[in-house]
Amino acid sequence: MKAEIITIGDEILIGQVVDSNSAWIAQQLNKIGVKVNRVTSISDNRDEITTCLDECIQRGQLVLLTGGLGPTNDDITKQTLNAYFGGNLTLHQPTLEHVAGFFKQRGMPLTEMNRQQALLPDNCVVLPNPIGTAPGMLFEKNGAYVVAMPGVPYEMKQLIENEVLPLIKKQFKLTNIFHRTLLTQGVAESVLAPKIKNWEDALPPQIKLAYLPSPGKVRLRLSAEGGQNDDLQSLVDTQVKSLINIIGDDVFGFDDDTLESIVGQLLTERGKTLSTAESCTGGAVAASITSVSGSSGYFKGSVVAYDNMVKVNTLKVKGQDILNFGAVSQEVIEQMALGAMELFNTDFAIATSGIAGPTGGTENKPVGTVWIAVASKDNVVCRKFLFGEHRGRNITRTVLASLNMLRKLLLEY
Amino acid sequence: MKAEIITIGDEILIGQVVDSNSAWIAQQLNKIGVKVNRVTSISDNRDEITTCLDECIQRGQLVLLTGGLGPTNDDITKQTLNAYFGGNLTLHQPTLEHVAGFFKQRGMPLTEMNRQQALLPDNCVVLPNPIGTAPGMLFEKNGAYVVAMPGVPYEMKQLIENEVLPLIKKQFKLTNIFHRTLLTQGVAESVLAPKIKNWEDALPPQIKLAYLPSPGKVRLRLSAEGGQNDDLQSLVDTQVKSLINIIGDDVFGFDDDTLESIVGQLLTERGKTLSTAESCTGGAVAASITSVSGSSGYFKGSVVAYDNMVKVNTLKVKGQDILNFGAVSQEVIEQMALGAMELFNTDFAIATSGIAGPTGGTENKPVGTVWIAVASKDNVVCRKFLFGEHRGRNITRTVLASLNMLRKLLLEY
Repeated sequence: MKAEIITIGDEILIGQVVDSNSAWIAQQLNKIGVKVNRVTSISDNRDEITTCLDECIQRGQLVLLTGGLGPTNDDITKQTLNAYFGGNLTLHQPTLEHVAGFFKQRGMPLTEMNRQQALLPDNCVVLPNPIGTAPGMLFEKNGAYVVAMPGVPYEMKQLIENEVLPLIKKQFKLTNIFHRTLLTQGVAESVLAPKIKNWEDALPPQIKLAYLPSPGKVRLRLSAEGGQNDDLQSLVDTQVKSLINIIGDDVFGFDDDTLESIVGQLLTERGKTLSTAESCTGGAVAASITSVSGSSGYFKGSVVAYDNMVKVNTLKVKGQDILNFGAVSQEVIEQMALGAMELFNTDFAIATSGIAGPTGGTENKPVGTVWIAVASKDNVVCRKFLFGEHRGRNITRTVLASLNMLRKLLLEY
Repeated sequence: MKAEIITIGDEILIGQVVDSNSAWIAQQLNKIGVKVNRVTSISDNRDEITTCLDECIQRGQLVLLTGGLGPTNDDITKQTLNAYFGGNLTLHQPTLEHVAGFFKQRGMPLTEMNRQQALLPDNCVVLPNPIGTAPGMLFEKNGAYVVAMPGVPYEMKQLIENEVLPLIKKQFKLTNIFHRTLLTQGVAESVLAPKIKNWEDALPPQIKLAYLPSPGKVRLRLSAEGGQNDDLQSLVDTQVKSLINIIGDDVFGFDDDTLESIVGQLLTERGKTLSTAESCTGGAVAASITSVSGSSGYFKGSVVAYDNMVKVNTLKVKGQDILNFGAVSQEVIEQMALGAMELFNTDFAIATSGIAGPTGGTENKPVGTVWIAVASKDNVVCRKFLFGEHRGRNITRTVLASLNMLRKLLLEY
C-alpha cells in the first residue's frame, strides 16, 4: 500500500518554513504499514494544486494533503478542492456550531471570516477538528482517497491520529508491520554502532534496524515486516532484550517515552520530591520537568542562578569557592544541588553549571564544559561533560544528561 | 525564472529525517530572484529518479537535486544520472587527487570504495567539493540545467554558495524579489485580517501578503516582485510603515527577530536587569531569555515557584492571599513579580501563574487561565489571559505574552 503527501504553502517554497509535517505523517503511515512514495511541496496556487492532484491520483490510491485551509485570502485549498471534485460550498451546521463555540470559549467575537470556515464542499466527508477552526475533508474519486488537513502541526496531528489512520486501516489491506524504538541517552552513534555490530549482523531478515540520532539521544528503531499472522511483536521483543543487555542502563525507555516523564514516574512511584538549581540551562531543566502534566505532584521549584550572587545568597554556595574554583566546578555544583534540596525541602535535586557558549570559554574551561550534580539525602553524584560549541545544543544535551543521571540515581531507591 | 528541487533519500520518505535542505536552498534562490516552483522528495530508486527528472525538465529550466551521492550501495544518484544523460563513468583525475588528499589528511587509508567517488560521468561539468568526497555535477539537456549535490547539509551549502548561485546568475535573466516579514504577538489571525483588510485590498499589484500563524504569534510576510531596476525595498517598506500604524505596538520585530532577543536588546540598551518568578511556565520564560547568547549581561535569575510554599518562603507572597484569592490571581501574581525583583535585586521582573492543564481547572478558573505580571521599580502591570486546553501551547503562549508585556513596558523607559 503506497501513499503520497502534498504540502501546500508559499512559505515552504520560499524556505521560510521547513516542512516537518510530511516527515511526521510518513512516520505514522509507516507504523501501520503504508509506505510514502513521494512528497511534493507546491505553492498556494489553483493550477499547481490541480495538476499535482491529477498526477498523484494517477499514481496511487491515497493522497494526504496539508495546508491552505486557513480563513485568509491566500488560503485557497478548500475552494480548489471543491472545484476539482465538482462540489458546492455549503454551510455545515456542526462545523459552524463548533467554530462559534471555539471563539465564545476564548471570549472572542465570531467574525464573518470565521463563519466562512463552516462553508464546506457538499461532496466531502467532514473530519472534525476539535482543536482548530478548519476541519479536515475526505474526498473520493475513482477509488482514490484524498484527505485535506490544516497545515498547523498540532491540528494536523490530531486529525491523522483520530480520523485518518482509522480510515486507512478500514479501507485498505495493509502489510503487517511492527516497530519498537529503544531510547538511549549519552552514548554517541559512533560508539553504539561497533558495540552492537555483531548483534545487528545476526538479526533475522524480517527485522531492519535504523539509527535516529539527535543531540544527546540516539533512538534505535527495529522494524519487522511480515504476513498478517506472523507474531512480529515477539520476534522484535526477543531482539530488544538482547540489545538492552549489550547497551546497558543508558537505555532509558521505549517508543514515545521521554526522560522527563520517566523521571516523573519514578518519583511518583517512590513518593519523592525534586527541585533544581540551574545556571547554564537557565530554567530549561525545570521547564522540561514541568512540561509533564501532574509534575506539580513531585516538583517543588527551581532557582535559576544565572548571577553568581544568586548562587551565594539564595543557594548558599560559598563565595570563596566560586572565587577559588570558578562557578563551573565540582565544588560549586555540589553546593548548588545541596542548596536547592535545602531551600525547597526536597528529597532530590539537580544542579547544572557550564559554559553554554558561543562566548565565555577559556583554555581550561572551553565552551561546552558543563558540570552536573544530582543529589539525594545521602549522596551527591557529580559529572563533568565536554559538549560542543552550539549554545542551543549544549543546553539540550545538559538537560537530557541531568535527567538521565537523576533517573539512574532514582533506580537505586 | 523558476526552479525545482528534488531531494533523494529513503530516510526522508520514512520520516526519519526532516528535509531542511530544500528550505535553505529555496531561501538562497529567492534572494537572487529565482522562484522555487516545486519541491519533490523521492526514494533512492532508479525509476523514481528518472521519472521525476523527466517531469521537472518538462516543466522548467533548472533542477537542483540533493542526496544519494555517497559511496555505499544504497546511493545510486550518480549512476542513474550518468545513464539518464547518456554518459560514461570515467576516472576524474582532479577528484581522485582531492579524495586521496582528503583521507591522507585524516590519517585514513584510501579504500576502493573511496576511489570510486572519482568515477564521474564524462558529460557533466564537475563542481568541486573541497569539504567532502562527492563533488557536485552539472548536466545540460535541451537548455535545461540539472545540478546534483550531496545531501550532507554543509557540503550542499558550500556548493550552492560557491558554484551553483554564480552559475545561475551567469546563465539566466533573473527577476528582482524582496521580502519583509512583520512579527506580531497576541493578536489572532482572525482579528488581524479584518483590521488590515482595507490596507491589504489597496496593496500595489507587485506586493503579495501571506499570513504565517503559530501559537501566540502571527507573522505577516510582504513579497514584492519586479524588474531589475525597481526599488522593491522602498515599495515594501512604505507598506510596512502603514501596516505598523494599523496594527500598533503588537508588532514586535521583523524577519528573524525573536521576542527574547528584542527584550534582551532593550534591556542592554537601557542598562537594566531582569528576573522572573514562574509558576505555570515552570522555568520556560527564563529558559527562553537565556537561550540568547549574552543574556548573562542582564538576566540575574529566576525562582520557579511550583509549590505554594516556595511562593511564600522564597518570593514572600502572603500565605493569606493564596488562601483568599488562589495562586492564580492578580493579588498573588503582583507579589510574585515584586518578590523576584526584591530577591534578585533587578530593575524588572516577570511573573506567571496559571492552570496549564490538562487537569486542575475549576468552573471559575478553567484550564488555560493565566495571570502574568511585569514589574518595574515604579509600576506593576498585570493581565489575565484565557488560553486553550493544551498544556504545551498554554506554556508557549504564556512565555510569548509575558515577553511582549515586558517589551511594551521597557519601551516606556
